[in-house]
Amino acid sequence: MRSSLSIILVRPQLGENIGLAARAMGNFDITDLRIVSPRDGWPNSSALSASVGAHSLIENASVFSSLEEALKDISWVFAATARPRYIKKTVYDIKEAASFSKEIFPQKVGIVFGPEQTGLTNEDISMCHGALSIATSPSLPSLNLAHAVLLCAYEFSQTSAAPSSPPLLASHEEIFSLLSFLEGSLEKKGFFFPEEKKEKMKQNLRDIFLRLPLSSDDTNTLFGALKTLQKNGDKSSFS
Amino acid sequence: MRSSLSIILVRPQLGENIGLAARAMGNFDITDLRIVSPRDGWPNSSALSASVGAHSLIENASVFSSLEEALKDISWVFAATARPRYIKKTVYDIKEAASFSKEIFPQKVGIVFGPEQTGLTNEDISMCHGALSIATSPSLPSLNLAHAVLLCAYEFSQTSAAPSSPPLLASHEEIFSLLSFLEGSLEKKGFFFPEEKKEKMKQNLRDIFLRLPLSSDDTNTLFGALKTLQKNGDKSSFS
Repeated sequence: MRSSLSIILVRPQLGENIGLAARAMGNFDITDLRIVSPRDGWPNSSALSASVGAHSLIENASVFSSLEEALKDISWVFAATARPRYIKKTVYDIKEAASFSKEIFPQKVGIVFGPEQTGLTNEDISMCHGALSIATSPSLPSLNLAHAVLLCAYEFSQTSAAPSSPPLLASHEEIFSLLSFLEGSLEKKGFFFPEEKKEKMKQNLRDIFLRLPLSSDDTNTLFGALKTLQKNGDKSSFS
Repeated sequence: MRSSLSIILVRPQLGENIGLAARAMGNFDITDLRIVSPRDGWPNSSALSASVGAHSLIENASVFSSLEEALKDISWVFAATARPRYIKKTVYDIKEAASFSKEIFPQKVGIVFGPEQTGLTNEDISMCHGALSIATSPSLPSLNLAHAVLLCAYEFSQTSAAPSSPPLLASHEEIFSLLSFLEGSLEKKGFFFPEEKKEKMKQNLRDIFLRLPLSSDDTNTLFGALKTLQKNGDKSSFS
């Protein structure tokens, strides 16, 4: 079965890791590679040479300047993270994530990987619907970037049950429009107080709406509800 | 479960691949690394630096001058090969091999990997009990050496994967208070129109909030947001 998985590397540092990640994807027929702000620019000759037989993945990789741009057409995004304890996302292991992906096929699923040294920031993670954690040894938990990509590519290619009728999920862009409308309305009404808590409060809201598998219809319903709520004046006062 | 798996690299060429293989093993608590006739001799500084947190595996690796020597204390040996069609061995996939290994635990199981360019010779393979094959894409079948080791280490460690811890969910009552507040506010503002669609619209909203795994904190956050939204007057109008 053709996979609907996209791999998104955020601010990757070493070209060689990008190339090895591409090769690992190619080994399991996963072809959509997206790269956000690669440290050494793009194209990158060491990425190309490390990719061995997967040159076409490197040549066709899409490069973005922000994570939000990279996720626009993706319906469900996992943040690959080794520190699931400190984040407010539902944590999936790779098998669970792969089987979820099959349920919503052919809608696009993305897995976002952070830079080698530091991993994803909280802001990166807040853009994602769920977290994906690979259970590793407590004595050596840190996976090489291309290795983490390989294990995901491998597990996503293992699950093969085709779904009957998947729910039609809203795209990342639809959800972010909803969120930005909500944030704007709350901002006007002075909800984000005190100022120093504003970012944290926004992140909490984002967490809630991303965690939920929302369809396009749901998004429209919520949009309608929010627009109504933020209107001034009760309807009764006009009657 | 402590694994009884040994990884045997035969005539590996690149120190970096040896190091990355060691790191991959360490990520899954597999510690017995054996190396037969490494091309660049031993010790190998690039193997050490590529192993990152798995230095002890490199430092404790046993080095042999023949495969036969390396296998002496092992009870069952798999030959990792991408060409199972041309060999006269029973072919196992990784999951089958891992489950076989569990059956014969604590007897030692080994997996033998050949050199990067050429793979195992027929003579190497003839030393092994069975063949192990990793199903890869026909368009890019060849796995990086460390990647092949990683997939084996990963599958052999999967026998007892711990389930992820569930989030602490809000009670049904909390969610229904939230919903009834939302419905009340929307009702006052004339959202449920026309009248005959009212029940259906309410049901849509309920569906959305129930489908979401909401914690108590989330429910409080949403309550706060909704209360703010339904207030009359923008904050700016007071300033």
